[in-house]
Amino acid sequence: MKYLAYVDVKLRPGISDPEGATIARALPALGFDSVHAVHVGKRFTVELEASDAHAAQALAASLADRLLANTVIEESVIHVTEA
Amino acid sequence: MKYLAYVDVKLRPGISDPEGATIARALPALGFDSVHAVHVGKRFTVELEASDAHAAQALAASLADRLLANTVIEESVIHVTEA
Repeated sequence: MKYLAYVDVKLRPGISDPEGATIARALPALGFDSVHAVHVGKRFTVELEASDAHAAQALAASLADRLLANTVIEESVIHVTEA
Repeated sequence: MKYLAYVDVKLRPGISDPEGATIARALPALGFDSVHAVHVGKRFTVELEASDAHAAQALAASLADRLLANTVIEESVIHVTEA
């Protein structure tokens, strides 16, 4: 069966996020006074074939840890849906 | 009230995604034969203050369209949750 796996890769807590901090710092001058913080991550959408949702989740997790995330500084969260 | 807005920015359909295509092309050699395609986008997590969820959604949408996404080639999807 075909599945869509959404792999959200974000920096671990405590790792500095200069891109997010820069965006957040620019916002008050642009009229966005009520934004306190911005964090930037990546979202990978993976189209894959697996026997069931459990296998799809495991495949996406392996892919995330081996290739998509730098696990020293990043963590990933995976959501699988049927395509 | 405090809200967390997740802004997912991805390329519009039809816009080429060389980063995703490169990852997808590399996968068979790494043992991931059952992955058909990979699409790469960004996920911004925005901590903001708003009177209600509707206002938070509107603020995040304005932020996304004005700053986070290049609306010529990208589209954004927003989810708001209470922080």
